[in-house]
Amino acid sequence: MKQSPLRLHLTRWAAFAVLWIATVAPAHAQTDPLPSWNDGSTKQAIVAFVKATTDKASAKYVEPEARIATFDQDGTTWVEQPMYGEAMFAFDQLALELDKHPRLRYIEPFKTVMSGDQAAIARLTNEDLLKIAAAITHSGMTVPQFQQSVRDWLASARHPRFQRPYTDLVYQPMLEAMQYLRANGFKTYIVTGGGQDFVREYAQRAYGVPPEQVVGSAADTAFGYDKNGKAVLTKTHKTLYIDDKAGKPLAIHLMIGARPLIAFGNSDGDREMLEYTEAGDGPHLMVLVHHDDAAREYAYGPASKVGTFSDALQAEARQRGWTIISMKNDWNRIFSWE
Amino acid sequence: MKQSPLRLHLTRWAAFAVLWIATVAPAHAQTDPLPSWNDGSTKQAIVAFVKATTDKASAKYVEPEARIATFDQDGTTWVEQPMYGEAMFAFDQLALELDKHPRLRYIEPFKTVMSGDQAAIARLTNEDLLKIAAAITHSGMTVPQFQQSVRDWLASARHPRFQRPYTDLVYQPMLEAMQYLRANGFKTYIVTGGGQDFVREYAQRAYGVPPEQVVGSAADTAFGYDKNGKAVLTKTHKTLYIDDKAGKPLAIHLMIGARPLIAFGNSDGDREMLEYTEAGDGPHLMVLVHHDDAAREYAYGPASKVGTFSDALQAEARQRGWTIISMKNDWNRIFSWE
Repeated sequence: MKQSPLRLHLTRWAAFAVLWIATVAPAHAQTDPLPSWNDGSTKQAIVAFVKATTDKASAKYVEPEARIATFDQDGTTWVEQPMYGEAMFAFDQLALELDKHPRLRYIEPFKTVMSGDQAAIARLTNEDLLKIAAAITHSGMTVPQFQQSVRDWLASARHPRFQRPYTDLVYQPMLEAMQYLRANGFKTYIVTGGGQDFVREYAQRAYGVPPEQVVGSAADTAFGYDKNGKAVLTKTHKTLYIDDKAGKPLAIHLMIGARPLIAFGNSDGDREMLEYTEAGDGPHLMVLVHHDDAAREYAYGPASKVGTFSDALQAEARQRGWTIISMKNDWNRIFSWE
Repeated sequence: MKQSPLRLHLTRWAAFAVLWIATVAPAHAQTDPLPSWNDGSTKQAIVAFVKATTDKASAKYVEPEARIATFDQDGTTWVEQPMYGEAMFAFDQLALELDKHPRLRYIEPFKTVMSGDQAAIARLTNEDLLKIAAAITHSGMTVPQFQQSVRDWLASARHPRFQRPYTDLVYQPMLEAMQYLRANGFKTYIVTGGGQDFVREYAQRAYGVPPEQVVGSAADTAFGYDKNGKAVLTKTHKTLYIDDKAGKPLAIHLMIGARPLIAFGNSDGDREMLEYTEAGDGPHLMVLVHHDDAAREYAYGPASKVGTFSDALQAEARQRGWTIISMKNDWNRIFSWE
């Protein structure tokens, strides 16, 4: 088709308009991607890392397909005190289950849980808690039944201190960090000691993270058929792996098949994930959340059984130059509803 | 900014240009997305399914995040005769290993493999082959060492009949189906009985499938430190799960956390994956490749130990209305280099 000069002019104008929409407009719309973070070395470390790994002119540039970010969950992206959210869920489910199967009251660790003996309950190990979470309260259920039980619980349960649904207890600064990373081509994975099927029920809504990017502790499932002959998976007692400590690199390799560039944690359970991230050939950033804000959230560290941040981890982090977030000083807002 | 009528007109024109570029231009560029498929009911079933699940006006419309497609690998997306590619790799690796560890020659199934007794080798079970693949030849290696060994093998190994690298033996029609599905917002997963770490080394290049979308049989890894104190994963003997038969729905749930809408397989090992797909609430399509083309590839079925397509599966497929691909009749080209 022959084009008149005016038409040519319009076409050129249209091309500029397209360019404008594609490049200038988003830049104009850009504001501080981390508004809940105070200016300082912590925020600066994250921003500088993202800029360096996404700027093609940078020596640290990383192709988009290798931009992997991993986030521990409990104590890193949401509140884990006074007890992991999933443990709260498990206790609530346990009470329902014991009505159906009273004999469990005589088996450990359920015997202790139901004894009401707070000192004994406080001595339960993480292994005990994971047993409660992964095994009894979830096994024998079909996967859809389990998923429904999580949704029911999320809709009704309230955190004892904040009196809000657990999914309200997501840290706003970490949400911003996840969004900022995704806007820069990173895939953001949750890598949690918590149950994978549990976290997947709310990760999309709470974090913008789809099910396949939730990596958690996993139990085996059994394949079978329902009464209509339809294929169904049932949850079993058998643990496939516990996604905590040395289990985190294992699960990252299994589920992602690539090493993170940037990893966020908050406790001794995240040490190996951060070491594994640091051992990558390319650029990497290791970040730990330190809970030092009793007024707005909680203050805990080496003495806490939930989310232990030991002196040894503190020393390793300082020696290796890992970034430590002070919730008190680095975050001007903890929750979105503040 | 106050706009002159001409400026307003130009802006409108620009908006149309943007719309044109976004919608009309790609439609003009669109040609047959499945050129290696002959017209017929098989091709029609796939195209109709994709159209129905991606057209917002359709009753079968599915949101992009739920568009999951799973593909078995051996015999479904690449050649599996006369023996699985990974078994070939394992045998080659085994020969290298036995030079280093001669005592293995006295342990089954290695004793049989190295005996040269073709009849005894032919009687090795899939379990034996997986043992060879997943355990001995890979264990004790760090993950990067293993990955390098796969890359070395892929670069040098040749298929005994086609005398080409194994990654040349990908079925062109299946590549087109994967690309067509991705172009329509589907995530395309490989779900294979083969070793996950093995397939991940070439899946991006051969199929356009990134590591995290390769779901395969998996062995445990051990976390440790190299001589420089850097975190490293080592492959172990311990199987986490075998991604075959009932293991496929398990692995799909573990790795994806959602049910496929469309699943492709070719053998009894894929039955449960197809049943699981069929049991989904929404629309679904189950497809099996039938190897009936001895001239261009291989013809085999119930009697074959590799890629068994039993009469029972055939009967189930017909009864349930699953789509069966005849390689001979439905594919006008098998390999890209034909």
